[in-house]
Amino acid sequence: MRILGIDPGSAFTGWGIIEDKSGMLKLLDCGVIRPKGKGKENFAERISFIYKTLLEIIAYYQPEESAIEQVFTAKNALTALKLGQARGVAVAACANFDIPVFDYAPTSVKKALVGVGRADKEQVAFMVGKILGVNIKQFRLDTTDALAIAVCHSSMRKFYALTRK
Amino acid sequence: MRILGIDPGSAFTGWGIIEDKSGMLKLLDCGVIRPKGKGKENFAERISFIYKTLLEIIAYYQPEESAIEQVFTAKNALTALKLGQARGVAVAACANFDIPVFDYAPTSVKKALVGVGRADKEQVAFMVGKILGVNIKQFRLDTTDALAIAVCHSSMRKFYALTRK
Repeated sequence: MRILGIDPGSAFTGWGIIEDKSGMLKLLDCGVIRPKGKGKENFAERISFIYKTLLEIIAYYQPEESAIEQVFTAKNALTALKLGQARGVAVAACANFDIPVFDYAPTSVKKALVGVGRADKEQVAFMVGKILGVNIKQFRLDTTDALAIAVCHSSMRKFYALTRK
Repeated sequence: MRILGIDPGSAFTGWGIIEDKSGMLKLLDCGVIRPKGKGKENFAERISFIYKTLLEIIAYYQPEESAIEQVFTAKNALTALKLGQARGVAVAACANFDIPVFDYAPTSVKKALVGVGRADKEQVAFMVGKILGVNIKQFRLDTTDALAIAVCHSSMRKFYALTRK
């Protein structure tokens, strides 16, 4: 079972592919999608770039399920609109390959990994490193966040399968 | 030149295809995409539905350019996140066919059609009907808004071509 975790953002979109072999998790690949340019002018181009890069990643690794961070709040409406659009293209990329998308609130991800819903990003990153057995120092926090969502989904998916009818 | 206008929304996404033959505008088709279901649970499914329906529309009518309403404000962050995601899948659907996406602020659309930036939706709808020579009574305001964006783009695109290098 391959899981794609995505931490969407219009400036940095973190992504990670993990493999779940009967509970043993392994990191396959991960990274950050960083569209060039700034400003409103080419915002559509920037999120198109995120979309197309995700299409390439999915086509290459062929994950069977994806988990994307669900966000309910943002600093302001403009930030929320940008974040929403980045999330939208991530969902669209998965829909393009008919990969089911699972939503996790940031607190659920933190709880699944660290045990508390208010853990900070560094604690989450540390646990991602422990669980996947990799040195996370080399990764950005966007990447470790994406991996955390994938790890969270790997532990929640059985539960999801039971309750989601 | 075929133009696709989109008025994105997670509950109702209006769309319209117009044809511009040396300045003469003609309505080809239009409608509203209305995903089933409500609530957070299946939000990803709902915006995937918008995405897939737009893919079908684009594949069928093969527009050469698209215009999508750019929004900078929303009632609150949650509304903005939902709206942003609907806009994101619209941009992704266009990116999938390499159709350039042009952004227009609601005030620009109103100004282009009615002459004032603060015109209400009904006035915009009335002008859409006049310009395209159709009875707009049969359409929802989401649809006439989408058509308005397409009409706006048809008049702005020459200007865009001159200034956008």
